[in-house]
Amino acid sequence: MDTAVKRLAVLGSTGSIGRQTLDIVRTLPEHFRVVALAAGSNTSLLLEQIKEFGPGHYYSSSEKKLDAGDCKFMSLEEMAACADADIVVIATSGTSGLEAVLAAARAGKRIALANKESLVAAGEIITAEVKAHNAEILPVDSEHSAVWQCLNGETSRPRRIILTASGGPFLDYTQAQLEAVTVEQALAHPSWQMGKKVTIDSATLMNKGLEVIEAHWLFDIPVADITVLVHPGSIVHSMVEFADGSVKAQMGRPDMRLPIQYALTYPERIANPGFSFIDWHGLSMLSFEPPDMERFHCLRLAIDAAEEGGTSPAVLCAADEAAVELFIAERIKFIDIPRLVETVLDEHVSNLRPDIEDIIAAGTWARDTLFALAGGSD
Amino acid sequence: MDTAVKRLAVLGSTGSIGRQTLDIVRTLPEHFRVVALAAGSNTSLLLEQIKEFGPGHYYSSSEKKLDAGDCKFMSLEEMAACADADIVVIATSGTSGLEAVLAAARAGKRIALANKESLVAAGEIITAEVKAHNAEILPVDSEHSAVWQCLNGETSRPRRIILTASGGPFLDYTQAQLEAVTVEQALAHPSWQMGKKVTIDSATLMNKGLEVIEAHWLFDIPVADITVLVHPGSIVHSMVEFADGSVKAQMGRPDMRLPIQYALTYPERIANPGFSFIDWHGLSMLSFEPPDMERFHCLRLAIDAAEEGGTSPAVLCAADEAAVELFIAERIKFIDIPRLVETVLDEHVSNLRPDIEDIIAAGTWARDTLFALAGGSD
Repeated sequence: MDTAVKRLAVLGSTGSIGRQTLDIVRTLPEHFRVVALAAGSNTSLLLEQIKEFGPGHYYSSSEKKLDAGDCKFMSLEEMAACADADIVVIATSGTSGLEAVLAAARAGKRIALANKESLVAAGEIITAEVKAHNAEILPVDSEHSAVWQCLNGETSRPRRIILTASGGPFLDYTQAQLEAVTVEQALAHPSWQMGKKVTIDSATLMNKGLEVIEAHWLFDIPVADITVLVHPGSIVHSMVEFADGSVKAQMGRPDMRLPIQYALTYPERIANPGFSFIDWHGLSMLSFEPPDMERFHCLRLAIDAAEEGGTSPAVLCAADEAAVELFIAERIKFIDIPRLVETVLDEHVSNLRPDIEDIIAAGTWARDTLFALAGGSD
Repeated sequence: MDTAVKRLAVLGSTGSIGRQTLDIVRTLPEHFRVVALAAGSNTSLLLEQIKEFGPGHYYSSSEKKLDAGDCKFMSLEEMAACADADIVVIATSGTSGLEAVLAAARAGKRIALANKESLVAAGEIITAEVKAHNAEILPVDSEHSAVWQCLNGETSRPRRIILTASGGPFLDYTQAQLEAVTVEQALAHPSWQMGKKVTIDSATLMNKGLEVIEAHWLFDIPVADITVLVHPGSIVHSMVEFADGSVKAQMGRPDMRLPIQYALTYPERIANPGFSFIDWHGLSMLSFEPPDMERFHCLRLAIDAAEEGGTSPAVLCAADEAAVELFIAERIKFIDIPRLVETVLDEHVSNLRPDIEDIIAAGTWARDTLFALAGGSD
């Protein structure tokens, strides 16, 4: 077994994935060392993390001068390309991770990628840079980690990827019930502990739509060969079907630390005293059903944007980010999320050969357009 | 992809696995060529197969001189070691495959092994010969194929192997109902089309017990780290749990041709127009429960024999083979199978360091003892 200590740069260390990454380091100190930490506005938690893990460098988007002792400031792009790190964990939320992912790819890094928006918005550009610079993207999302684990050791292309979805808290809600959904209800996910943005996206199934696009780029598979199945138990994290009819599934308790740790220890697997195992005696049934894309229209919008390509996925992503912000601020209703995102997509003319500036500009346009639409409908 | 034609020697070509192997060759003639066929008493089917597939050699246990044109007689051991074959498929039933497996192992062959009894009776000796001569054993049993597929590409030892069991046709039978089971009922397996011996063994769960021992040798894992779960759907063919809590499962429609073909095409996977895919929309539930080793005592006997080691698994195997013959001949009752096998095991003093002659002798003793016990209770 490879017992060398792995050095980590954790971008987005105060968010949900970042904190869980540091929890793994805390539990397995003989396997990992933190060399750099980057955070957004939560400087008090960042300072605590710097004190506990003693990295050489930090980044904070809110204040450049932190009283961090020997720990020196470093820009986000420098950190993503940082020579000290064996693995760059990119766990910033939303589209803000895009430049960091590109910097890490160009530096030929092993990237543990939790920021799906960057791949959704700029998958073609990122995967080209990864290939050109011999970088690696290891998925952290539980579904993509599952697919990756199932593809391990396989030499033939998969016939189909089956992404499972918990279905979120409103799986059985009627359209009328969906009209009345509150922020509090939408933030109460039945099986996963996650950040706010992804929790709302899970409730609308937009998250699953973004994952379809992410899987398309990560595994170089046509969108048409990616199927979504609703599996409320959240035990089967995703599956791969092969040409001969064989299907491999990866399962585990719904705990994000498992896919995070796998990306950090790959190709090895390490026992973590903080993890628990599936209790088969308590688990009686695993069920699967197709998603309802009428009630959960975001999934349809995402698949259509993926098929359209060009700047459409970036527009989808940025419009959704804006809509979720407005919903959390109680300025729009839950069912306004797909309606507004669809209107923005309808107004967009996709640039089918965008460069990175076109993608960023499309996102900014989408965000502004959605806010304007929502303001107009107030 | 490796598109070279693979040359097959099929031992046990007229049995269930042998016929399904030839069905795959028939469907994918550009991938396989049959160079040798061996059968038992069904010479008429063997002659048909020789005519259809045109092998250079045949073996028949019943008549040495077949009117087989240019196809020459060859002994079973010669065929198992045959230089013309890239893969030796060993699909003879019961303990009769033991010598063939040893011959193939000593010749350093790639062995597609459907005969589990040989590994159960002489696993330690066979695996030592395989290692010494750089041979390979590729499992054909659906459960072991599933485990093998799940271990593909993994570098860390599994924490646990979970073998699934359909539970057979009598899963919910009371002890009183089990007393009255007929041969016809026991031969009607709810999900798998298999030979008679393995179908009866599936009904008693002895088959699952033999599979525990087979998995122990194939994957070099302690018997205590192998768990059996009843899964009546027969969709999940088995699972592997890793140190980090991740579980991988292999699934497919219950069709023996899938694991047979995988052993023949490994590491590639090939589309077979005769195969079908899992219909997820029709499949609503997958359930799992622990087996009842009181009502299905054969499973307990097998696990205990595996833990005992030495000649005990060979005795279990031969006693079960004899008991199943007597049950099919309607000379004993269904529930006599575990009773008689247990009595034979109780009378046996295990030789913990047996050579192959000791193992064969223990099997002969077990068979004779079981017949004597059954005769005495007539």
